[in-house]
Amino acid sequence: MTTSNKPSLEVCLSPALLHLYDVKNSIVVIIDVLRATSTICTALYNGATSVIPVATVEECVNIGRAIDGITAGERDGRVAEGLVHGNSPFEYPREFIENKTLVLTTTNGTKLLHMAKDAIQIVTGSFPNISAVCDYLAAQGQNVILGCAAWKDRVNMEDTLFAGAVISRIREHFEVGCDAAIAAETLYNTAKGDIYAYMQQASHYQRLAKYGLEKDIAYCLTPDGANVLPIFREGKLVPF
Amino acid sequence: MTTSNKPSLEVCLSPALLHLYDVKNSIVVIIDVLRATSTICTALYNGATSVIPVATVEECVNIGRAIDGITAGERDGRVAEGLVHGNSPFEYPREFIENKTLVLTTTNGTKLLHMAKDAIQIVTGSFPNISAVCDYLAAQGQNVILGCAAWKDRVNMEDTLFAGAVISRIREHFEVGCDAAIAAETLYNTAKGDIYAYMQQASHYQRLAKYGLEKDIAYCLTPDGANVLPIFREGKLVPF
Repeated sequence: MTTSNKPSLEVCLSPALLHLYDVKNSIVVIIDVLRATSTICTALYNGATSVIPVATVEECVNIGRAIDGITAGERDGRVAEGLVHGNSPFEYPREFIENKTLVLTTTNGTKLLHMAKDAIQIVTGSFPNISAVCDYLAAQGQNVILGCAAWKDRVNMEDTLFAGAVISRIREHFEVGCDAAIAAETLYNTAKGDIYAYMQQASHYQRLAKYGLEKDIAYCLTPDGANVLPIFREGKLVPF
Repeated sequence: MTTSNKPSLEVCLSPALLHLYDVKNSIVVIIDVLRATSTICTALYNGATSVIPVATVEECVNIGRAIDGITAGERDGRVAEGLVHGNSPFEYPREFIENKTLVLTTTNGTKLLHMAKDAIQIVTGSFPNISAVCDYLAAQGQNVILGCAAWKDRVNMEDTLFAGAVISRIREHFEVGCDAAIAAETLYNTAKGDIYAYMQQASHYQRLAKYGLEKDIAYCLTPDGANVLPIFREGKLVPF
């Protein structure tokens, strides 16, 4: 819209909309706040060597066996059959995960990650590593797409809020033109006074609260509890 | 999420997401605030017999000739070659449009309308007919999908705000579960104090303002200037 020479900062609210964006010329931030990308940064922050994101339980089992990794993933709120751990960031304290490789299967986040494979760079973001994400993006001088993993392609609240939080922190470095970005920022600014309370009306909150996971949700919505940047290199997420 | 027996009220932010919704068991409201659905209700309010929405300029010309209708549509901000009128609601005062048929080609709105053809019923909505839309939806007791026409499948601000405005008015009659609906309502509640000012940051505002169309935008954002409900019957939008 303007003639600024700043790189663009856009928000893609669902993987089903990613084809509308210029992925090849952008850094893509994969956002799956509840809970994949929160758990990924937590595992790396606590010393995991890498996190390997895979699409299926079968792949998870096979790769886990081949590299002696920790296999993790849930389906319908339970550890998936054949895997050993779940999606909660609290399952990965330093004394457990340090120097190990986590092989993690998640539906929404992994799908988006594979769709973004032609990006300049892929990183993952969530509130526990928001400062690391923002510092990195502001320093690169590249176009950015904040890619929400959503829920089975449906727009969700928590990923949108995180996108808005990032924009509110680093918008001065970018040209923020797309309406989804403006909407996300407005939502975040409206909710930020008590983001946990605002999230209680969201569909995923209710899904997880049913399983007693309010503590996970609170952690996943809190800034900088695991402030490291996972960056995608040769099929693995490693600390930047 | 709850066990209420109310019908559901959901928001689809882009035609590219419509396949995720249960169109067949819902009333679909086509929303293309700037300017197709604002112009449609205005033409009907001012006495047009019907509005025939068509996808292409060629179709528009052919149907217009066959039924002696008023052909209208723009491409890149100008009346499309071969057509006689544009997309502005101000082109359709009573003294011009009464007892005539408007054949209108629009890209985003028409596409969504055809995608929603299996719905229980299709109606169109915009701020100029918001009360008619809300009264109708509240009275039907059916599931509702508020379908944003968006901009070339990209989420846009004005259609999202209208969806939020509808939800804020009639949510008591429905189960509002989807996060897009909650987000739209929050956006509307944040913007409603001065929706015109809020819209000035939106991409479509800037696109239209470039053509000097601020007056159109103000009209399209103002409630109940043309408070009639266009309902889709046998290929035509007619007043309910």
